[in-house]
Amino acid sequence: MLPPMNHPRQCQFAATQITLIGTGLLGASVGLGLKAAGCTGRIVGVGRRRASVERALQCGAVDAVSEDLAASLADSSLALIAVPLSGFAAVFEQIRPAEHEGLTITDVGSAKQCVADHARKHLAAPQRFVGSHPMAGSEQQGPDAAQADLFAGKPCIICPEPDSDPHAVSQVKKLWQSLDMHLMEMSSAEHDRQTALTSHLPHAAAAMLMQVADQHGGWDVASTGFRDTTRLASSNPPMRSDIMFANREHLVEAISSYRQQLEALSDILQRNDEEALRQLLTKSKTVRDNWISRPKESP
Amino acid sequence: MLPPMNHPRQCQFAATQITLIGTGLLGASVGLGLKAAGCTGRIVGVGRRRASVERALQCGAVDAVSEDLAASLADSSLALIAVPLSGFAAVFEQIRPAEHEGLTITDVGSAKQCVADHARKHLAAPQRFVGSHPMAGSEQQGPDAAQADLFAGKPCIICPEPDSDPHAVSQVKKLWQSLDMHLMEMSSAEHDRQTALTSHLPHAAAAMLMQVADQHGGWDVASTGFRDTTRLASSNPPMRSDIMFANREHLVEAISSYRQQLEALSDILQRNDEEALRQLLTKSKTVRDNWISRPKESP
Repeated sequence: MLPPMNHPRQCQFAATQITLIGTGLLGASVGLGLKAAGCTGRIVGVGRRRASVERALQCGAVDAVSEDLAASLADSSLALIAVPLSGFAAVFEQIRPAEHEGLTITDVGSAKQCVADHARKHLAAPQRFVGSHPMAGSEQQGPDAAQADLFAGKPCIICPEPDSDPHAVSQVKKLWQSLDMHLMEMSSAEHDRQTALTSHLPHAAAAMLMQVADQHGGWDVASTGFRDTTRLASSNPPMRSDIMFANREHLVEAISSYRQQLEALSDILQRNDEEALRQLLTKSKTVRDNWISRPKESP
Repeated sequence: MLPPMNHPRQCQFAATQITLIGTGLLGASVGLGLKAAGCTGRIVGVGRRRASVERALQCGAVDAVSEDLAASLADSSLALIAVPLSGFAAVFEQIRPAEHEGLTITDVGSAKQCVADHARKHLAAPQRFVGSHPMAGSEQQGPDAAQADLFAGKPCIICPEPDSDPHAVSQVKKLWQSLDMHLMEMSSAEHDRQTALTSHLPHAAAAMLMQVADQHGGWDVASTGFRDTTRLASSNPPMRSDIMFANREHLVEAISSYRQQLEALSDILQRNDEEALRQLLTKSKTVRDNWISRPKESP
């Protein structure tokens, strides 16, 4: 059966109730997106910050607000954790008494190994937790910035474990497919290794460029190149700090590789090796241009 | 007298003839911009690559093409050098036999100390050379990408020396003011120190992020943050290599400061100092946000 024309995305899974734990930008956007896709299950918002959950209700991202997580989970087939990484241990502890066979749990955390470790430590049945990283966001925060199509067309990485419950894996896939995301599967460790290299390291690189300018200046001549290269330094500090710490082992390794590359460049400059510098910059450009012009995956 | 309404910029200086040495993106844009500003002097294009100079003629950036630099300079009151930095020594050598009292010389080079050094070494009257760095550009190259308003509203740094000829300084100021640029004056050394920090270092940082990804991967999760942070790595390699070498002493120092900052970040991560990381990222964000929202200089 074709999806109805007014629902280009189609709700892929039947849930009588979904609990959103955390209703900030990402949680509330999941709520709005599921409704836009025609999902009919009741969406309940639970959060530490009452004002944020009330706003999610007002903007239609959730159907109800609950202060009783266990009661909401008892009637839910899916729970989505969308809180800062530093809050995951506490959330898993609160979920544990309410775990039941019909409950699949997933999340939106930007680091995956630490989340998987917390799930294994705190949950009675960690195999019903399947980690997700929907790669979408905005410089804005909170439910007021939520958008039904925030996730559409973007990649989502899911990280099943060898002992993950197949039904839970299937439910989590259907959740993100309902929001029109492109799914990728990889281990939590591989996810964290890769994000350290092309996400967390660029954030670190941008933030440290600002430190250099703060210490030594250069403001009179700072222009669009500096602006774009340092854009990530304007990201939310507590959130970035959480993510960097959650993935600190891989990030420390990535920083070490980066420092080596910078040292190699400095050596080339100091020994006046123009040919080597030209080759190095040509390689960087070729690698980037190939990446930019890569064939995009079809939906 | 008010400028005519169709010339929001007004030609500030009277030159019977201007020689553009190099008619790529920047040289040709100066030609187009002067014409748009109502400057009436004849503009002659001279360049190593015949095809480039002919294209500049076709697109109206120059009035004539010459293969005889000395003859063109003999009738010119201004010469603008717009060739790659590695070509400056040869150009100054060619200018020398044609220097005359009425000839002011300037340039568009992205590094200034090496240009000043070449001028002092090769010119008979280096005081009639006043270095300029109009901070405008495009990812495109060549006269076909030239625009009359490429420079409008952008900063231009001029680097007079203590012994610079006051008339030459005045002519060079009027040139860039005619193109509606915001003038800043600083020494060549200060220019190079500052550009190393907020221009050449960001180029190096972007290019080395690509090297890390090329060696270790991360492509599956690379997204818009990676794209923007590495944008400068797609710059023209021979041109970037020229600039980095021309300013290598300051760049080596800037890379050293950057490596120290990255090491400090790595130390914070390794000793699990979440408070220090949060403070560091908050400082980076504050410094950047203050810069982004700074009051812009009025024209």
